[in-house]
Amino acid sequence: MKKQTIVLACACALLQAQAITTASPDGNVVADFNVVDGVPTYTVDYKGKHIILPSRMGLDLDNAPDLLDGFELANTSSSSFDETWQPVWGENSDIRNNYNEMVATLRQPANDRTVLIRFRVYNDGVGFRYEFPQQRNLNYFVVADERSEFAMPGDITAWWIIGDYDTQEYEYTESRLSEIRGINEGRAVESNLSQQQFSPTGVQTSLQLKTDDGIYINLHEAALVDYSCMHLNLDDKNFVFTSWLTPDAQGKKGYLQSPCKSPWRTIMVSDDARDILASNLILNLNDPCKYDDTSWIKPVKYVGVWWEMIGHDKPWAYTWDLPSVKLDSLDYSKVKPNGVHPANTANVKKYIDFAALHGFDQVLVEGWNIGWEDWSGNKKDYVFDFQTPYPDFDIDELNKYAHSKGVRLMMHHETSSSVRNYERHMKDAYDLMDRYGYNSVKSGYVGDILPRGEHHYGQWMNNHYLYAVTEAAKHHIMVNAHEAVRPTGLCRTYPNLIGNESARGTEYESFAGNSTSHTCVLPFTRLQGGPMDYTPGIFENDLSKFNPNKKTHVNTTICRQLALYVTMYSPLQMAADVPDVYNRFLDAFQFIKDVAVDWDRSIYLEAEPAQYITAARKAKGTDNWFVGGISANGHKSEIKFDFLDKDRKYEATIYADAPDAHYLTNPQAYTITKKKIDAKTRLKLTTAPGGGFAISIKPIN
Amino acid sequence: MKKQTIVLACACALLQAQAITTASPDGNVVADFNVVDGVPTYTVDYKGKHIILPSRMGLDLDNAPDLLDGFELANTSSSSFDETWQPVWGENSDIRNNYNEMVATLRQPANDRTVLIRFRVYNDGVGFRYEFPQQRNLNYFVVADERSEFAMPGDITAWWIIGDYDTQEYEYTESRLSEIRGINEGRAVESNLSQQQFSPTGVQTSLQLKTDDGIYINLHEAALVDYSCMHLNLDDKNFVFTSWLTPDAQGKKGYLQSPCKSPWRTIMVSDDARDILASNLILNLNDPCKYDDTSWIKPVKYVGVWWEMIGHDKPWAYTWDLPSVKLDSLDYSKVKPNGVHPANTANVKKYIDFAALHGFDQVLVEGWNIGWEDWSGNKKDYVFDFQTPYPDFDIDELNKYAHSKGVRLMMHHETSSSVRNYERHMKDAYDLMDRYGYNSVKSGYVGDILPRGEHHYGQWMNNHYLYAVTEAAKHHIMVNAHEAVRPTGLCRTYPNLIGNESARGTEYESFAGNSTSHTCVLPFTRLQGGPMDYTPGIFENDLSKFNPNKKTHVNTTICRQLALYVTMYSPLQMAADVPDVYNRFLDAFQFIKDVAVDWDRSIYLEAEPAQYITAARKAKGTDNWFVGGISANGHKSEIKFDFLDKDRKYEATIYADAPDAHYLTNPQAYTITKKKIDAKTRLKLTTAPGGGFAISIKPIN
Repeated sequence: MKKQTIVLACACALLQAQAITTASPDGNVVADFNVVDGVPTYTVDYKGKHIILPSRMGLDLDNAPDLLDGFELANTSSSSFDETWQPVWGENSDIRNNYNEMVATLRQPANDRTVLIRFRVYNDGVGFRYEFPQQRNLNYFVVADERSEFAMPGDITAWWIIGDYDTQEYEYTESRLSEIRGINEGRAVESNLSQQQFSPTGVQTSLQLKTDDGIYINLHEAALVDYSCMHLNLDDKNFVFTSWLTPDAQGKKGYLQSPCKSPWRTIMVSDDARDILASNLILNLNDPCKYDDTSWIKPVKYVGVWWEMIGHDKPWAYTWDLPSVKLDSLDYSKVKPNGVHPANTANVKKYIDFAALHGFDQVLVEGWNIGWEDWSGNKKDYVFDFQTPYPDFDIDELNKYAHSKGVRLMMHHETSSSVRNYERHMKDAYDLMDRYGYNSVKSGYVGDILPRGEHHYGQWMNNHYLYAVTEAAKHHIMVNAHEAVRPTGLCRTYPNLIGNESARGTEYESFAGNSTSHTCVLPFTRLQGGPMDYTPGIFENDLSKFNPNKKTHVNTTICRQLALYVTMYSPLQMAADVPDVYNRFLDAFQFIKDVAVDWDRSIYLEAEPAQYITAARKAKGTDNWFVGGISANGHKSEIKFDFLDKDRKYEATIYADAPDAHYLTNPQAYTITKKKIDAKTRLKLTTAPGGGFAISIKPIN
Repeated sequence: MKKQTIVLACACALLQAQAITTASPDGNVVADFNVVDGVPTYTVDYKGKHIILPSRMGLDLDNAPDLLDGFELANTSSSSFDETWQPVWGENSDIRNNYNEMVATLRQPANDRTVLIRFRVYNDGVGFRYEFPQQRNLNYFVVADERSEFAMPGDITAWWIIGDYDTQEYEYTESRLSEIRGINEGRAVESNLSQQQFSPTGVQTSLQLKTDDGIYINLHEAALVDYSCMHLNLDDKNFVFTSWLTPDAQGKKGYLQSPCKSPWRTIMVSDDARDILASNLILNLNDPCKYDDTSWIKPVKYVGVWWEMIGHDKPWAYTWDLPSVKLDSLDYSKVKPNGVHPANTANVKKYIDFAALHGFDQVLVEGWNIGWEDWSGNKKDYVFDFQTPYPDFDIDELNKYAHSKGVRLMMHHETSSSVRNYERHMKDAYDLMDRYGYNSVKSGYVGDILPRGEHHYGQWMNNHYLYAVTEAAKHHIMVNAHEAVRPTGLCRTYPNLIGNESARGTEYESFAGNSTSHTCVLPFTRLQGGPMDYTPGIFENDLSKFNPNKKTHVNTTICRQLALYVTMYSPLQMAADVPDVYNRFLDAFQFIKDVAVDWDRSIYLEAEPAQYITAARKAKGTDNWFVGGISANGHKSEIKFDFLDKDRKYEATIYADAPDAHYLTNPQAYTITKKKIDAKTRLKLTTAPGGGFAISIKPIN
């Protein structure tokens, strides 16, 4: 591993001053920390402008004196760090981790307690966290709430989803901060199988904002371990966000034992939206990879038995004859099959054949295992055993068949949020995967959590999600966890966490339709902490062709679906539609076959939240490039190919919306043109409303 | 297995009548069931007297129409059963299960729902339960509370402990029903590391009662599986108890999926107190043994490294240097030992030697494993790993040493109520036991339950306790679970559940002293559902001899301790004091060495709740008998030995309180006399206040 490390340490005991300041390496970002009347306070400036106004810090404890005031700055220290590291997979093969750090040691004499606050100031923003040394008066303590403020520079614009302890599956709203309350009070939130809002001005992170000056700010957290997930609650008189953690079943927000630390609270800032997308702040704040051997972790391109259920309304369940099932007493071989269960041996073989023919790594199969008849909405404890296939799914034969064709099956563990049940079966479930040659699992947490009263984003569940990942690592299994807490960069430390859903994904195109701005926002928000298994690739917009009862329309052109493989970075990419549909558009499908899932280099060419994104990426270990652009309402792009090697010629295959394409009225119209290009080429491309373009570029010489 | 089975089935569709009645085989107990104005109602009579006055039945559901009224009796059926079965261990080698049964099928037309109530009427009482057939309108349902009434025949006497969702470790109070409220409101409940009362007239079961006529009534439940534990709440104007289940973290009292059934609610009744002690009602109502092979389940007599901590205040912890520990990062080999940690190799070897010398099967060792430094009161999640010994406990050598002497170590799994943590480690912990040759474990649940908000006696935890037992069975491990829900006869179905504490035990002699009536009540109450690991055998009453800070006095004579091995039936019996103490009283200790732990036959010779109990038992597979008698305040017993074989002579060794013995002032004074006896012998024996006597009887010819 190449490393360039320069560490400059300097301990400055400025006991007289109660303030310290640190700037980013390029000087543009400045963080100030003060103790003001005993209250820890910080600000962030960017290029001389106030980005975070004076904001208080601290924690409210349960049944103990607060950690909010009565502090003095007992010590400070500062240092610098500059290292380049290589992720196991990612948007870039090298990531530079370069920051200036300051640490404030705070003493609270009245209670004889010490807290540290560490700031790291990067060129693309700031991270800070609390650290609690082992000490007698802060040994075991319970958090009533964290009170980290983020005082906004006025009534700025935000792209937000409502704060919720159990789901992120909402459309983003673009509004000023002052409008959030009215919008939330004026409309019903989209329903979800598990949801719990807490405030009409509560929002989730990562939160994307923009000042009227054109400065982009993004708030999130990094390294969420053994702590409760942070939301933000807005004081909409003063435009100050305050951290609002997720409660447990008793309303407490965290059980801590010193020595320990909070996650990093992150503030990205730039006057260029592309920097927000390109930022590695969150990965850099996470700990390095903990695994000695990562050779078993590989990006995956897959197809699957999934859209037949989600998009075409076929059942996961094997039978319709039973109102409910009890796994320990039901003999499925005696039950009447419904005959339309897609997760059956013959159908899965078709997907395996398709995957093998077109070079896909894996085939996901949902609905392979007993228990789906009453899996949802019943808060059932013993809902799945994760091991027993339905009578029509020959797990042994299918895995052999897949392997004979150079393909693997992808496992599916829907837990129905019955988490104790999942943990009880986890080792056996992972052992079964080992036995049959599965190396990746899509897991799910649909519905209210059991143990009842816990929330999807509380400390209890965050502990579980990480447990599932570290246990999987013992089996060399990669995890893609849906409905879990939104990621915070832990994939650096545990790179077998190759994906989450944890946002509104492609399935909602079937449930309700997604807005055309949605994927123009997600990279700014959801993708900050880690990749999303967005599962694009839907080519057939009119779902009534498969099921006359379907009324929804998939709001995309075909080319936008292609572009998503570039604009929605993920090491795990699904071609989500069914083979029959792809077979009608094999020329467009070619892009999905060609596009890489792992990159040496990524460049964001243009971007504006909720409007358009264009990205270019170089496929790892090759000289091939892929470019993708999407827009919400139509957009004219001018692409400069100056990222190509200067002395080379390339062939570009350009997949573009036809001139009359439109996501609603003419979504399947596209053109494919080949063109010779080089580093000097400039190309104008127009995306339709809800459209996109995708370009695959190969060197000629 | 010998079986005498006579089944008489008779389906009587008495559609016009809304009442059915069934009597016990001997006709003394009569249960009536009626639907009165749509409300299911029952009564119980004993020898013509009303024992349970008209009492309503049903369940209050959450977010669904109640199952309380609007019923009609759609069908009835009745049958009889008579079978003798053999428990794997027990007070008797044969148990007769003879009852008359009636089943009421209730329909609730307004909601199109059906519920069955099944009654079994025995010579010693009645059991009833609710059954919910699989049906569309009662598929998944949530119990707000069960409303089974037990209308008492007036303001009768009860021996009770206050209703509590988390502990049973209370002294019993004897009072009239009308006095319960005042007593509870007038005093503070003894503190406990986890407790939660719910009503000033709430009590726990099993509840022992007595009418002024001298009729004994006992209320409890049998076969508590996948349901919440039942307490009773008294309406003290009308003297009606109503079932009050234990809530979960959200206040719900049960999640059910039909087909399913409630536990049995049991009403024992007799005019002879000895019948209450001898009753097998609860075992008979449980399902037969589920295991094919039970050869690995054997009663255990043990000593242990335990009283040194509980009685003499030595530490479980290895070091005093740390305010807290983190198991995944602490290197105990670098820590300074406190040097008084009793669970060390040399000390344990002394216990092994003592056990081998005196014929004990096992040596319990508490404090053997890392994590005890901060195990209690911190609601710690990752508190123990159940596998890593302290540096001074050589697990390999000690197990080899023990086995070389024909002794086993007994495992200890204190969970600190961190139940997810225990389940995560359970397989590895049981595997470790297999590896080292442990076959039994004492488990504990001290402190508030994690997941937080759950209670010790809720459905969630009841599921866990049984899971721990069934998982243990896979490893041929026997379980003795402390602080768990009080037993309800499940040891018939799962006979590797060889004990529970689940009441105030001998440890309280060290904490506060137990009343001398306590063990004169426990067999009537706590022991109804299963044996208790009471851990008697304390010979040294003055604990200040070991630790000058101890102020408590152990309220017992030595002979009472001996008698407890007979009066407190258990297949698991500890000689709880330390070897040094026993070595001073080896003549008395001989009884503990001789007494059996498994029985062919048990007879209660005399008994009155809270006053005195005398029992005689024949050791399984031998012609030896053991007699034990205890009293609260002193008692004169006249024992008839007519249970001995008529044509035989026996030698009796009689351990009796000396004439001037007294539990407070002269507890260690006893006499040992040998006497030849036969079936015609009558013996007068006097117990001191807080005293007892014990007799071991061997045939001479």
